[in-house]
Amino acid sequence: MSHNTFGHLFRMTTFGESHGPAIGCVVDGCPALLPLTEADIQGFMDKRRPGQSKYTTQRREPDQVKILSGVFEDEAGTQVTTGTPICLMIENVDQRSKDYSDIKDKFRPGHADFTYLEKYGIRDYRGGGRSSARETATRVAAGAVARRVIAGMTVRGALVQMGPHKVSRANWDWGQVEQNPFFCPDAKAAEQWADYLDGVRKSGSSCGAVIELVASGVPTGLGAPIYGKLDQDMASAMMSINAVKGVEIGNGFGAAAISGEENADEIRMVDGERQFQSNHAGGVLGGISTGQDVVVRFAVKPTSSILAPRKTVDRFGEDTEIVTKGRHDPCVGIRAVPVGEAMMALVFADHLLRHRAQAGS
Amino acid sequence: MSHNTFGHLFRMTTFGESHGPAIGCVVDGCPALLPLTEADIQGFMDKRRPGQSKYTTQRREPDQVKILSGVFEDEAGTQVTTGTPICLMIENVDQRSKDYSDIKDKFRPGHADFTYLEKYGIRDYRGGGRSSARETATRVAAGAVARRVIAGMTVRGALVQMGPHKVSRANWDWGQVEQNPFFCPDAKAAEQWADYLDGVRKSGSSCGAVIELVASGVPTGLGAPIYGKLDQDMASAMMSINAVKGVEIGNGFGAAAISGEENADEIRMVDGERQFQSNHAGGVLGGISTGQDVVVRFAVKPTSSILAPRKTVDRFGEDTEIVTKGRHDPCVGIRAVPVGEAMMALVFADHLLRHRAQAGS
Amino acid sequence: MSHNTFGHLFRMTTFGESHGPAIGCVVDGCPALLPLTEADIQGFMDKRRPGQSKYTTQRREPDQVKILSGVFEDEAGTQVTTGTPICLMIENVDQRSKDYSDIKDKFRPGHADFTYLEKYGIRDYRGGGRSSARETATRVAAGAVARRVIAGMTVRGALVQMGPHKVSRANWDWGQVEQNPFFCPDAKAAEQWADYLDGVRKSGSSCGAVIELVASGVPTGLGAPIYGKLDQDMASAMMSINAVKGVEIGNGFGAAAISGEENADEIRMVDGERQFQSNHAGGVLGGISTGQDVVVRFAVKPTSSILAPRKTVDRFGEDTEIVTKGRHDPCVGIRAVPVGEAMMALVFADHLLRHRAQAGS
Amino acid sequence: MSHNTFGHLFRMTTFGESHGPAIGCVVDGCPALLPLTEADIQGFMDKRRPGQSKYTTQRREPDQVKILSGVFEDEAGTQVTTGTPICLMIENVDQRSKDYSDIKDKFRPGHADFTYLEKYGIRDYRGGGRSSARETATRVAAGAVARRVIAGMTVRGALVQMGPHKVSRANWDWGQVEQNPFFCPDAKAAEQWADYLDGVRKSGSSCGAVIELVASGVPTGLGAPIYGKLDQDMASAMMSINAVKGVEIGNGFGAAAISGEENADEIRMVDGERQFQSNHAGGVLGGISTGQDVVVRFAVKPTSSILAPRKTVDRFGEDTEIVTKGRHDPCVGIRAVPVGEAMMALVFADHLLRHRAQAGS
Repeated sequence: MSHNTFGHLFRMTTFGESHGPAIGCVVDGCPALLPLTEADIQGFMDKRRPGQSKYTTQRREPDQVKILSGVFEDEAGTQVTTGTPICLMIENVDQRSKDYSDIKDKFRPGHADFTYLEKYGIRDYRGGGRSSARETATRVAAGAVARRVIAGMTVRGALVQMGPHKVSRANWDWGQVEQNPFFCPDAKAAEQWADYLDGVRKSGSSCGAVIELVASGVPTGLGAPIYGKLDQDMASAMMSINAVKGVEIGNGFGAAAISGEENADEIRMVDGERQFQSNHAGGVLGGISTGQDVVVRFAVKPTSSILAPRKTVDRFGEDTEIVTKGRHDPCVGIRAVPVGEAMMALVFADHLLRHRAQAGS
Repeated sequence: MSHNTFGHLFRMTTFGESHGPAIGCVVDGCPALLPLTEADIQGFMDKRRPGQSKYTTQRREPDQVKILSGVFEDEAGTQVTTGTPICLMIENVDQRSKDYSDIKDKFRPGHADFTYLEKYGIRDYRGGGRSSARETATRVAAGAVARRVIAGMTVRGALVQMGPHKVSRANWDWGQVEQNPFFCPDAKAAEQWADYLDGVRKSGSSCGAVIELVASGVPTGLGAPIYGKLDQDMASAMMSINAVKGVEIGNGFGAAAISGEENADEIRMVDGERQFQSNHAGGVLGGISTGQDVVVRFAVKPTSSILAPRKTVDRFGEDTEIVTKGRHDPCVGIRAVPVGEAMMALVFADHLLRHRAQAGS
Repeated sequence: MSHNTFGHLFRMTTFGESHGPAIGCVVDGCPALLPLTEADIQGFMDKRRPGQSKYTTQRREPDQVKILSGVFEDEAGTQVTTGTPICLMIENVDQRSKDYSDIKDKFRPGHADFTYLEKYGIRDYRGGGRSSARETATRVAAGAVARRVIAGMTVRGALVQMGPHKVSRANWDWGQVEQNPFFCPDAKAAEQWADYLDGVRKSGSSCGAVIELVASGVPTGLGAPIYGKLDQDMASAMMSINAVKGVEIGNGFGAAAISGEENADEIRMVDGERQFQSNHAGGVLGGISTGQDVVVRFAVKPTSSILAPRKTVDRFGEDTEIVTKGRHDPCVGIRAVPVGEAMMALVFADHLLRHRAQAGS
Repeated sequence: MSHNTFGHLFRMTTFGESHGPAIGCVVDGCPALLPLTEADIQGFMDKRRPGQSKYTTQRREPDQVKILSGVFEDEAGTQVTTGTPICLMIENVDQRSKDYSDIKDKFRPGHADFTYLEKYGIRDYRGGGRSSARETATRVAAGAVARRVIAGMTVRGALVQMGPHKVSRANWDWGQVEQNPFFCPDAKAAEQWADYLDGVRKSGSSCGAVIELVASGVPTGLGAPIYGKLDQDMASAMMSINAVKGVEIGNGFGAAAISGEENADEIRMVDGERQFQSNHAGGVLGGISTGQDVVVRFAVKPTSSILAPRKTVDRFGEDTEIVTKGRHDPCVGIRAVPVGEAMMALVFADHLLRHRAQAGS
């Protein structure tokens, strides 16, 4: 769909600027009778919330979600969805009055300052305005609702590469992901990353990252060919996240370098069930889920806000330089993990409803 | 958008199965008064058409496009678009009566046989039915119309990797792309690929590929944040193509491994014009075009149809094997080049109209 | 949805001009495994087909539908839908070469000649081009597919007013509708109309009509508040038909003149079932179906093509006159009955899928 | 579009229940640089606000709009739109704690109580929840933004029939509309209505109404055939308003009873301009605006909440009676005037952008 709405049947419309009164979203098309409280959502918000370790921006936002509509108490007194639109609002608390004179007139390299002004003729320059990563908080909130819709599935993500440093697949342990500030599934890599990122942070530089998302318990048949393919919508979802520059499914770019024998997943009957012998496809064939895990990876560019002075121009057409002051994430990829999970949950919720519409169950 | 429609304002709806009476598409939302004849479209069709070298499938389809609606002669006698829907039909000529008993009941590994049957409870198994790459012919036809809409831009593509073999950027020459059967911009690489692919073909195997698309002359301001970002829609477009497993913009996955200093493009005034000093962003910031070249790459998996017998099951739940007989592309990535170009043109045409709607010009 | 597509999940995209090579439509989102042959569709086409009595245009079109995609034989050898897009094509046979010099340059009063030229800067003037009522043939074809989706419901229509002459509700007999050339449910009125319309026709004039559509067997719960209300989409559907100027549901405009006591339908338990005591609402409350008959009426204006000379201007800005020559319907409202039925079936099919998506059954 | 979103390019998504914390809407796709303050919107809100005369419900809501996003100060210090989504929120102040035991279990005749429960299995019964006319406040807010987009047009409405009593066209004076509590353009009729409605109110009954909307200064060419016709979208817009049962354009249902000679509008050159000699079409031909006034009428049913006891059933399947207590509008049609205006403005804003997208200006 277009503009500020994501999804087709299960849809999220987001609004808000980084330093305006509030950000939020309207989740529409949600089935009724699903349990939903602010506390359910808050848990996911807290995963994305900045200021929790020295590795993320020190902006202090409680990111407290208010449900403005779409829920009501059922007979048993449980707060549930009613099938009507769910508005989730997060007030912007940390709008510290500060000096914007620098970014007001200058285009920060790697940021959307230039393009927003070119497109609209005006931009809310305070903290990046609409193009701020702050908008992703609303995605996480909506994603928490989506998880209710896909109750039988598990959606989780991990950081698999920080700067040039990748995890070792042999060390993969989902249990580790919650044990370190990087959502890293490899305890050893996490230790190394801590040192690496400390160096990056202290030097005022930044680094990129790769996130891997895995969904388990996915039913077969999700995905609407030809132009609503499950993997297509995953790609769209991830590429809509700020700073994302690449997306791949299953073997991804690696598939280009191998042979058909190596890439296509064979099938056998095992205990009376069809079973794929491998999952190079990443759980999708012809745009439709196979029932295997759906595996998506996406690349996040290094934070553009760095301490080193950068050459740029101002809106009056003069050469100048700009230096980022104050708070920033040395690796925005870290906080992209819960955001990626939320987007994946949103895609599945939408496709579950789309599939049910046409196929009946 | 959903299902079998791509695009929002400039929209293509495709129909047809590989071995049905015809395939085609309806292009809706096209501005009026653009010159358009069947010959205009046919040139692009011929680039994608199979059977032109020993490296593509020997299926012989003239792929002749008929315009069924949406054009009329203007005052000067030129056939132009009228603003009404343009139906483009391609009759399926090469529907040779053949023995489908094998693929009728067995699921070919790497193909959508299994998932279509799971989703719909029925599938047209003849030549892959709806999931056949034949559908991409209609995209190329629609793409030719889209090129009329974005008349000031240039959209072109090249194969930059075949199997594990990449082109050398130093040898890049767009003029070479039409000189070899691989759309390869590096004459030297093209020679090596010829040998390599001959080997792959003779052994009955297959290989993947990476395609790079470059658009020049792109105006600033195209792209609709937050959920209709230009790069997001490019990702969606490319991932909707059969066999595509990854998409990236600008530096893409490479951006994950470098620093903010290396990645963000600095800006200077040059001859009174703002000029980016590099294009790591691939022409997009915050989902909106910067005016630089838009650079997109996508990975195509190796053809799943190979001569070696493959383990699979049949729809009765029995273990079995399947061997591809007859015609197939050893590297489907080759013919994906004109398809990728078409999808890129479609995304730009759509975004040009979307931008004009909101921004007025 | 927009432009040339109608519906959201069950969607029809139509194409074609009155005198081009063909008209047709693509029906997308249809569930799989529904029986569908060209003969199934043809029966409905024949009801709308011109030239069947002296009261409709003498244009002779066989209106033969070809299914180009989306069907396949199931195990039992029955041709069924496959869940992929169904393209239905009707070739234009009666494109008699004729002199268009008159309508080429002059704007026929009451026709879209003027507005199409203003909007697009060009128009296919042959027989009205895209704005011809011929487009409604494709709706009837799509409607026949929709009827398969809503197999448990009955959708039927009748002419309830011709010019100033209304049927008597006391004489209503659905069996009569097929017994006269007017789809009139009142045998006595039909006789009077025959005389009346003969007079209109002989004098070269025309008259309007009102059509009533009634759907029975409608499940409760169809309709998507707030902006996809069932009655809203019915209004949209009917108003999209050529020459329609008004739509009403249940009591319609009559509701304005009565009291709340008279208008609101009371409810009682009857044989253990909730039963409305009347149906002033026309089967819809709050945009959602109540389970009662859904009753929709729409008004068709008198045919604008009449034999009397009419004042107009030409595209060069000169005053002139125009006279309709040849074939025309004295009361286009008659052939609007099967078109209205088709549109009603399309709305229900779409809402059945939309409801199932959100509510699960 | 579907569910809780109205419009295609200029889109409004509404949320909120009658007695929840807040109602509101997100307006997306709005062009940038349009002046917009809360005060601009508040003026329109006040026209719809209840409790302003004895003829409307005594519920006391200040209906104060807050702009949460999408505006910013331009160079001159004027608050303008920025092209990003505009969230408008209205907190529900008058949520008086009251006894809902009656409507909690009983289905009020003429209300959506029954259908919401059937569809969703749950309903927020407090004040009608989502189906309350309170939702229309958000439409008026969004309509105020739409008016900025169509700055050159005038959109205004009037009540032309209350119960069985119509205005006299001869007395029409737009200046009168603001002079009486009924938006009545006929001073004499307004006096009579005052007596009539007083009687209705005192007897605890209710009455219906017909509203007429007139847009002037409409450019030619607005409207997207075939399924986004201007009149079709007007019909959809009006029928989406609570309690509306019929919509007509121009001559409307009256067109059915007259001849083609009487109905089709002739054209002449007047002072070098094309000029229609009448406006029976209501400003639309073939779904596209002619440049004449666009004239739309819609019928509102009598308020279903009346003091007389009504037969109904409860959700336990028992026969019962229900009596409306407390505040209600004896003629909801009155407050539908500003709501209808807002919907008309929204349709025009959307079509202006849609037209500009395809036609370029």
